[in-house]
This record gives sequence, C-alpha cells and structure tokens, in this order.
Amino acid sequence: MIIVMQLNAQEQQISAVIEQIRAAGLKEHVSRGAELVIIGAIGDEDRLNPLAFEMLAGVERVTRVTKQYKMVSRATQPAGALFKVRGVEIGGEQIQVCAGVHSWFATQVAQVTADAVQAAGCRLLWSRLERPAHSPYEFYGASLENASALRALARQSSLPFVVEVNDVQALEALLAYDVDIIQLGAQSMSHRGLLRELGRLNKPVILRRGLASSVADWLLAAEAIAAGGNHHIILCEPGVRGSLDVATIALLKRETYLPVFVDVSHASTRAWMTPHLTMAAVAAGADGLMIDVHTARVPAVDFGDQSVEVAQLEQIMIGLRAIAPALGRKI
Amino acid sequence: MIIVMQLNAQEQQISAVIEQIRAAGLKEHVSRGAELVIIGAIGDEDRLNPLAFEMLAGVERVTRVTKQYKMVSRATQPAGALFKVRGVEIGGEQIQVCAGVHSWFATQVAQVTADAVQAAGCRLLWSRLERPAHSPYEFYGASLENASALRALARQSSLPFVVEVNDVQALEALLAYDVDIIQLGAQSMSHRGLLRELGRLNKPVILRRGLASSVADWLLAAEAIAAGGNHHIILCEPGVRGSLDVATIALLKRETYLPVFVDVSHASTRAWMTPHLTMAAVAAGADGLMIDVHTARVPAVDFGDQSVEVAQLEQIMIGLRAIAPALGRKI
Amino acid sequence: MIIVMQLNAQEQQISAVIEQIRAAGLKEHVSRGAELVIIGAIGDEDRLNPLAFEMLAGVERVTRVTKQYKMVSRATQPAGALFKVRGVEIGGEQIQVCAGVHSWFATQVAQVTADAVQAAGCRLLWSRLERPAHSPYEFYGASLENASALRALARQSSLPFVVEVNDVQALEALLAYDVDIIQLGAQSMSHRGLLRELGRLNKPVILRRGLASSVADWLLAAEAIAAGGNHHIILCEPGVRGSLDVATIALLKRETYLPVFVDVSHASTRAWMTPHLTMAAVAAGADGLMIDVHTARVPAVDFGDQSVEVAQLEQIMIGLRAIAPALGRKI
Amino acid sequence: MIIVMQLNAQEQQISAVIEQIRAAGLKEHVSRGAELVIIGAIGDEDRLNPLAFEMLAGVERVTRVTKQYKMVSRATQPAGALFKVRGVEIGGEQIQVCAGVHSWFATQVAQVTADAVQAAGCRLLWSRLERPAHSPYEFYGASLENASALRALARQSSLPFVVEVNDVQALEALLAYDVDIIQLGAQSMSHRGLLRELGRLNKPVILRRGLASSVADWLLAAEAIAAGGNHHIILCEPGVRGSLDVATIALLKRETYLPVFVDVSHASTRAWMTPHLTMAAVAAGADGLMIDVHTARVPAVDFGDQSVEVAQLEQIMIGLRAIAPALGRKI
Repeated sequence: MIIVMQLNAQEQQISAVIEQIRAAGLKEHVSRGAELVIIGAIGDEDRLNPLAFEMLAGVERVTRVTKQYKMVSRATQPAGALFKVRGVEIGGEQIQVCAGVHSWFATQVAQVTADAVQAAGCRLLWSRLERPAHSPYEFYGASLENASALRALARQSSLPFVVEVNDVQALEALLAYDVDIIQLGAQSMSHRGLLRELGRLNKPVILRRGLASSVADWLLAAEAIAAGGNHHIILCEPGVRGSLDVATIALLKRETYLPVFVDVSHASTRAWMTPHLTMAAVAAGADGLMIDVHTARVPAVDFGDQSVEVAQLEQIMIGLRAIAPALGRKI
Repeated sequence: MIIVMQLNAQEQQISAVIEQIRAAGLKEHVSRGAELVIIGAIGDEDRLNPLAFEMLAGVERVTRVTKQYKMVSRATQPAGALFKVRGVEIGGEQIQVCAGVHSWFATQVAQVTADAVQAAGCRLLWSRLERPAHSPYEFYGASLENASALRALARQSSLPFVVEVNDVQALEALLAYDVDIIQLGAQSMSHRGLLRELGRLNKPVILRRGLASSVADWLLAAEAIAAGGNHHIILCEPGVRGSLDVATIALLKRETYLPVFVDVSHASTRAWMTPHLTMAAVAAGADGLMIDVHTARVPAVDFGDQSVEVAQLEQIMIGLRAIAPALGRKI
Repeated sequence: MIIVMQLNAQEQQISAVIEQIRAAGLKEHVSRGAELVIIGAIGDEDRLNPLAFEMLAGVERVTRVTKQYKMVSRATQPAGALFKVRGVEIGGEQIQVCAGVHSWFATQVAQVTADAVQAAGCRLLWSRLERPAHSPYEFYGASLENASALRALARQSSLPFVVEVNDVQALEALLAYDVDIIQLGAQSMSHRGLLRELGRLNKPVILRRGLASSVADWLLAAEAIAAGGNHHIILCEPGVRGSLDVATIALLKRETYLPVFVDVSHASTRAWMTPHLTMAAVAAGADGLMIDVHTARVPAVDFGDQSVEVAQLEQIMIGLRAIAPALGRKI
Repeated sequence: MIIVMQLNAQEQQISAVIEQIRAAGLKEHVSRGAELVIIGAIGDEDRLNPLAFEMLAGVERVTRVTKQYKMVSRATQPAGALFKVRGVEIGGEQIQVCAGVHSWFATQVAQVTADAVQAAGCRLLWSRLERPAHSPYEFYGASLENASALRALARQSSLPFVVEVNDVQALEALLAYDVDIIQLGAQSMSHRGLLRELGRLNKPVILRRGLASSVADWLLAAEAIAAGGNHHIILCEPGVRGSLDVATIALLKRETYLPVFVDVSHASTRAWMTPHLTMAAVAAGADGLMIDVHTARVPAVDFGDQSVEVAQLEQIMIGLRAIAPALGRKI
C-alpha cells in the first residue's frame, strides 16, 4: 500500500501512519522527496484497511498495489478454467450457447422453445422464473414451482438448465429442483449473504455483472464465491440495454481464469442487433452466449423484441460456425 | 399509448396493432400523415404491455403517455406526506437529521455516538449492522443480533432507530427487534420479493435509490410498496460517491408526495464535503438528511473519512439552523 | 410531431397548440382519450421547433416522429457508400486499416512507421500534427508545417494520408498541403463553423464521434457536412478510453449508409487490447480501423502504450485476414 | 511519480525505469517488498511523462503524486480570487447573477430582456450570438455583428456583457466589439489554440466545463489560460441537462482559488426547476449564476422552456436575498 502525504504533512502525522502500518504487522518504507513524503507499507497488504489510512490527518491519498482478488485471478490458472456440467464443457475451446425463454409463462411454450434450442445446436437451456421488473402493474412471473416443469424439459432434451435467483429463500427452494446451474441476478451481485451461500454449493454459478459495477468489484464478488470453496463460476456480462463494451471481455480474459459469457439478448434490446453483438462478443474472446428465444407471442408478458425468433437463432449458429475456426474455437 | 409505425408500414401491420389494442379492451385512434401512420390507444393504458407492441412487425416506436406510478404521485397528496414515527414528524416543515455510525462494530462506540447525535439535536438514529462491501477479505459487520443493542440505545435516548435490510430472511429476523424504520439497501431497490414484504408492514420504510436507477424506476419501486398498503415511505437519495445531483431532489418533490431524504455522507465520501452537500440538499428541497458520525477510530473497520466527527456534526446543525428559516423550514 | 397535453389541459391551451401547428403550415390531428388529449402535427415536421411547443402552457411532452437526419440515412443509399481516395476503396467489401504515428514528432520516425504500415498491408496513413492534450506542461505537437513532410512520406508510399483538424484557421492552412482525408477531432464534432467549411470541400472527411454525443447528434453533424454538398464522410467511433461499445457499430450500419471506422487504439488505451478490439469491431460490421503504431520510443512525447509495435500490427493483419472471409469481407 | 512494477518484473526492467528517471534529471527511490517492487521518482515530476513509463516492459502502473495544475490551485491564493469588471466584483462576498437571452434573435427582444435583468438586480448581461446546435435544419443564430447591438444595450444599462466564442477567428472578430467577458463554450474547453489566445488577453474569461470532462482536465484548461498571463478566469459549471452535481462546486472551491459560477438554466432544462437549482448552487458555495430569461416567444427559435420568465427571475432574486446572509454572502 502506498500512502501519499499532503504537501504540508507534519512529522507527527507521518509517525501516526507508520505506527498504524506497524500495528498491523507490516513494515514502512519512507521516501522523502523535494515536494512530498510517500510511505510504502511492505508486507501483506490485505491486513491493512486503506480507508482507515485515508482518515488519518495529513494523508492525501492511499493506493493499494496488489489486487484484492487472488483466487480468481488469471495467475492461479493461466490455462483458463475448464469444467463440465452434465457433459457440457465450459471454458474450453468450445463456444457454448445458452438459450431459452426470457421469462417463463407456460409449459407448452417452453417446450417448443426447448426443442428449437436443441435443434439449433445449443447445449444449455435457460429461463427466468421471475421477471426482472418492479412495477406492481406488470407481469411478475410464475412461481418457483415452475422449476419443476423446466427441469422436466431439460432432462428430456438432455440440456443442462439454468435458473436465476435473487434471494436466499428462493435459492433454498430452487436447490430442491436440482437446477444444473444457478444464475445470480445482476441486481444481487453484491448481496453478501447470497454470495456466501453460493460459495457453499457444489454447483456452477453464473455471476452477472451488477449495473454500474466495476470489473474489480465484479471479480471481488466472484472471489467471495470462490472463498467459500465453489470455483465453478461463469462470469456473464449483460451489457447495458442497447450497448455492449467488448473491452470488458478482453480485460476479463486477462485478469481472471474464469469463463466469460455474454448475454447478447439483454445487451441488444432489439432482436435485429443480436447476431451482430454475438459475432463481436465471440471475436473479443467470449466463451459463451446467452440468448432469449421466442416461439409464440403472448401480448401480456412479451418482453419487447429482444428475443430472437427460431430462424434468427439458426442464422446466429451458422454465423458462429463460420467464425469459430478463424478464432481458434469450436462450436 | 402511442404507436408510431415505420415509414413503409403495410396495412396488415397497422391492422395487427389495432387488433391488439382492441383485444385489451381499448380503442384505437389512427392518424395518417403525409409521412407516416401514428396509432393512439385510448383507454386504460395499464392494460397494454408496450413491449408486446414493439415486437409487432412494422412498429417503429411505442410510447406510454401516462406514468406508471399513480399511488405515490404528487397528485394523490398535493400537500405532501406527513406522518410520525414515535413522535418525530416526517415530511412536514421540520428538516430531520438521521445520524449514527456507518456500520456497527461495538456497543460502547455506538453508545457514545448516540449520545452525541442526540446532544447535537438530531431526532433519528441509525446504524448499518451489515457492511455494504463484497470483498471476502474485508470487515463484514456484526450479526443482526446487534439490533438488540441498537434498540436499547435508541429507547434510552428516545430516538427512533433505523436499520438496513437486503434480504427477506433478514427482514423477518429484524422485525423481532421492533425496529422503528426499515431501510431497504440501494442494491435491493428492485428486489420484488422484498418490496412485496415491505408493503405488508405497518412500519415506515426508507427506500434508497438503486445505483444507476432512473427516477421512474425508483418511484415504481415505491409504488410496489404502496400497492401492498404501506404508504409510509421515505425516499433516500444516496448520491454517487463523490457527487450529488440536486435536480433529482427538485424533481422528486414535484413528482411524488413522499418525503425525500439525502444520504449526504454517502454522497460526500469525504467528511470535509458533507457540510456543503448538506446545505445544498436542503436548499434544493430535501426533507431530511442521513449523516455518518464517528467518535472513535478502529483501523480494521473504518469506512474512510466519510463519517464526520462530532464537532463537524454540531457545525452542520448550526448551518441548518441558519438556513432553515430562509427556506421556510424548521430544524 | 406528437404533443401530449397535461392531464388538466384547458381548451384554450389545446387551441394554442393547434394554432402554432397551423401557423407553420401543418395540420393538427387531435385524439381525445379518457385520460388525456394528444395532438399530432401532420406535415413537414422540420418546419416545427419542438422546443417552442414545450414552452406552451398545458403541454406535457413533445416527440418528433421522423428523424432529423435525412441525407445521411440508410434509406437514401441502401447499398451503402462506396468511394475511392487515390484508388483506395472506402465502404466496399474491403476492410481498410489506417495506421500511423499517434502524434508527429520527427520525420525519420514517421518514415520508418510509414514503411512498416505499408509493408504490413495497410492502405491508409495517418498522423496527428497536434497532440490532443490541454495541459500547458505537456508536449503539444509540431506545427502544421509538418503536413508537408507527412505528404512527402505518403506520396512516396502511395498511401493516401489523413490529418486531423480542430479549427477553421488550421483547416485553411492544411488544405494548402493537399491532405487526402481531413479528420475532424472528436472535441469539434459540434463545431458548426467547421462542419460548414467541411461541407464545402471536395475531400473525404473522417468525422469522429464527440465525447458523450448520442448517435443522433453524431448523424446530425454528418448531415451538416452533407448539407453543404460533401457526401464523402466516414464516421469514426473512437470508443471511450478503455471501452468500445460495438452496439453503436451495428446501429450505425443500420441507420446510415456512411462507412464506419473504429479507432481501436484510442478505445484500447493499452496495446495488448488492440488486437481483441480489432476483431470485435470488424465482427460487429466496421468498414475500417485506425491504429496507432510506434517504431521508436521518445520518453518526452510517448502517448502511453496505446500504440502497437510493428510486430503486433502484423499479427493484427494476420487475424483480419483469417476472419474477413467468415464475415463476407476482404482485407 | 510512483511506478509500480509487475509481480514478475526482471532486474533489467527495473533498471530501465531507473535509467529513464535519471535521464530526466530526477532521482529514484526503490522499495523492494515481499510481493513487488515500487519505484518512486524524486524531483520535479513535470519533467517526466507518465505515459512513457507505462510503455516500459514490466511496468504495472504509474501514478503522479503532485497535481498538474499549479497556478490555479487554491494554494496560490488561499483567500480566493477577487477582481472587478467595470466595477462589478467577481469572487468576493457578493453573489453575481449573469442573465440574458439564451440566443440572440432580435434587438428589441434583447432590449426588453436587458431592462428586466437590470431591474431585477442582476449585475451582468449575456447572450449567445451563435446557437449551440448542429442540425443544419435548426435556427443557427445571428452573426457576430450582433455583438455591436448587444454592446449598445450593455453600455446603456451599465451592465458588463458576456459573449461566447468557440473559434479563434470568431474571437478575433469579437474583440473588436470590446466585449467585457469572453465565455469559452463547453465544447471548446480543450481547444488548445483558443486557450492560448485567451491566455494572451487582458479580459476575464468564463471557462465552461467540457461535457464529460473531469475536474482535473477542467483545471488544466484553466492552467493553460493562466500560463499565458491571464488570471481573470471564472469557472462555469453547466450541469448536464436535467442534473446538477453540487459536489463539483464544493470540490472546486477547495482545489482552486478561481470563482465558480453555475449555469442553472442549462442544468435545469425546465424553468420550474431553475429556482431550486439556484438555491442549491449557492448553498454549495457558488459565487455566481448564469440564467436565461425570455420576454417574448418566437416559435422558430425558442430554446425550450429552460428560460425563466421575468417574474420567475424576480422570485429567484428574492430567494437569493433571503438565503445569502445565512451563507455569509451578499447579493
């Protein structure tokens, strides 16, 4: 940790900083320049709370020099993650497409979608059971019990399935349905109670980036899961509605060994844009994609045209098959 | 609802829109201009799902004309809210200051702070029991059981007290401690399960704005609580660390009758800035303020210098007493 | 234009709106619903100033229904633009790479770079003569006269060359050097005087997106150039330092027929990221790329490591050659 | 400057950094910790280019420790700036209101506005001559020659007047009209050529913050003017349309001695909001305000309802007179 003192810092202020460094069991290293004094804390930086140094009189600025995430950093697994969910490889050469209905409303609709998803060559199935909106006047979503019907569809098609969770209570209920992959909703990325519970599971977790969260905060949330013992974490970049920053994908692939998915439907907002974002995400290094598909329209619950039709999904898969070899990937 | 058709919209596409409007029990009103066709849906707009219209072929754009929040809109209570919590008036002429320790770590520290808060003239007490950070390597906060000690302090000083909650399970636990006001954490603003539970309570709720949430989404979250029957809602603008948009305060006071608080400590990040933001928030129309105070330093848990010292809190109260009459308020 | 009246709008307020519509030579179309009155203005929307309607009493909201940019919209040239600069095709099947030194500091350095750029297979050469920083203590850049040396290098290698301009005076000076393509700096995107001058030129213009500018504002700036008679406009998305939103590329290709370049070096900030962003930009539909290259290091003027080394440029070109056919492009 | 090396930095990489520090005439100070090596550069930091260090192999991160702006920092004039323009004090106890028409369209309108502005007690007059929009289909604004009529109005009322400039050519033209204060448009904040010219003037300059510019970049632009010898600089925070961050005002008052104005009309967007933002800006420490006023409506050129009516301006002045003493200011 580096503590930059203010220009007029007094000796006793410098001493107070040194004392606090020593009290935590680290050593100080003081640079006295023409203009100012800089103090380095040598040792295990995690034993220091930077905010506590900021509060000391005469301190201008405090900077960590090591990153707070360690277990999930690239250095711990330079080759990248590789694990299987019911036989489907995540994090390897193969690009995985996880597709399904945006929010569940009827078993027969989900059935048709699941068949189409499988026929198109996707290897993961998903559906939200609860719709992410908070107006009390909008369709809210069926209950968690629909996980049972979703599981039946998944088992029938042999596709592992994903369900989203945002509450500890809901997590407990869902585990009873033997969900294959748990997705943590973006709004819950920093929900410490949930991260702790997910860390205890022996199930892969898709960790969506929280709205306006930095990459560092995102990786710290992943670290919180890993710290509990669960290392089967997939990061999912949801984009911001109508935009997708691909630099994040490249940065993640460098900073962490965890597989990176992109929710191209959420990022696109409009179905016509989804194929373009799919190609760009994969070209930037994404290991997988999440795509909303619809096969029937139900005016009361439709979630805009961010869902692609089956024919569009098939075109997307054709595009991916064309581009994958040029990127050294398989599909 | 207004549906603007694409320039080349075909008659059958126009008919499909009209059909969907009629199916929901509304009437259409078609404007055929030189350049394009615009269709208005006349009737109860809440029976239409705009996203379902966006999906129809030939539709360019869909716009709601009424706001989705109704119960919490200014029109329902033009004079503004006014309710009491253990005798303390919220939403009236009086500006309320809610102060306390940022995150609980020891009863004796909280005791000294509570005494200082009361002596300075503040009328509400608060503390987080769980610290809002997600690095597994940082101080996490004491358990919910500390609500018991917090309540003892509050009862002793006769100050109503506020505790933050982010999970349905935690809410249930906290209710047993007879918390006076429940604060919903910013990250949970769109947690539909929690909003539903808060709507059932007979307790005031402080609803913090979610990070990057629009005012409309925020008011919809308030509407979700109000829809459950609980109308004692206080909106709390937390700012973004290091910034405070006062236009939001003015806009809220116009759009809703709910009282508006500002967490000036969260917005300030640095204690020296808190007095300035306090004055600006109140000048813009805020009904109350949340301020972090510290009386002792504990290097392992300090949350930067966003907490003011007791002497600064006293100065803030002096400033508020000077400015309040010029704004037609009391303190 | 659609004018939504406030809920309690009076008849005379409605009449005032109608009067203003008629005064501009358009017709009104009034929808009276259960809840509110909506007025459509039928005719040439460009004859109305929406802001003047917003000012009228009783008006809630005003919405344009047609886009303000017309000449540059996709509809005017559905096949996309295609033009040549000294034999180099812009906007066709071929992806163009425009490479060079970020900011000019010495002829011999630029010479080596130009040779490397040409050897790697790039077809456009560029250099800024003035460095885009405003600290008075930083390297500012050589004078415009260096355009002369840059032209000499360009003519020698037969690569058309690009220079950036931010001022009407500088534009006049540069034209004397027979620059092949003029780039308008991002900070000048809304400089109406410059847009007007560029509209009068018979030279291609690269129009960088202004910081925080919307796509609509960007296309209006292009429209301002096109309105002057110059239709050889290339849009260049500069990204925000450390991020690149590829949805913008897809959106531009749909909204306008103009070719779209991406300044992947500016977006990357770090050289290691440039190849990733290059692949993603092209996969999303970009027609060209701008890349900073360095061949020598000069501590006083280096612009971070956003410039790639020659070996990296060669790798980028290899990647582009691999991916182009899968995208139906040539390189 | 602090250079943090990567974890696996080699000795020769460390040596290269040290060499570059020494070559610029500074000394190095090397901290070798358990985990990494940190190198401090002791001496005049302005002689180092941080970007050149970032490019060196093995370097993780480079941080300046001193601020780049020096002349305009608070430390150089702890008491704050104080200067007069035609007898009107800027930067002292008195809060100054600069009011006028948003964009000039007719002398008689400006005349009525100027009379109203003066009658309300404002002490500075302003008008844009060129309207800041770039659609070629919108009203563009009258020519610079209207500065002549504006000056006549100003001299008649004895109010110093402000005109905005965005181009070196326009600046030269305007100086001939003996404008009292030159405002640099937000889009030109980083236009180095203009900053250099403004630095040579013996006239106060209002420097608006560029869209999405950091406070540091803004103060560097001010430094660029000051470096030329002109120290009569007023910073003007324009807000973002519909929002005003008051933390910026507090931060500026701490970082620089320059007076800080706020363009509350630009920030408000809607006239009803202007009084609220005015009070908040002043409560946060603003030294002056810019307010658009309108007295007549001209549908073709009206700029929305961000301009207040004369009666509203008078109410704003009443509000300011009430609050000023509570803030230790005069009006």
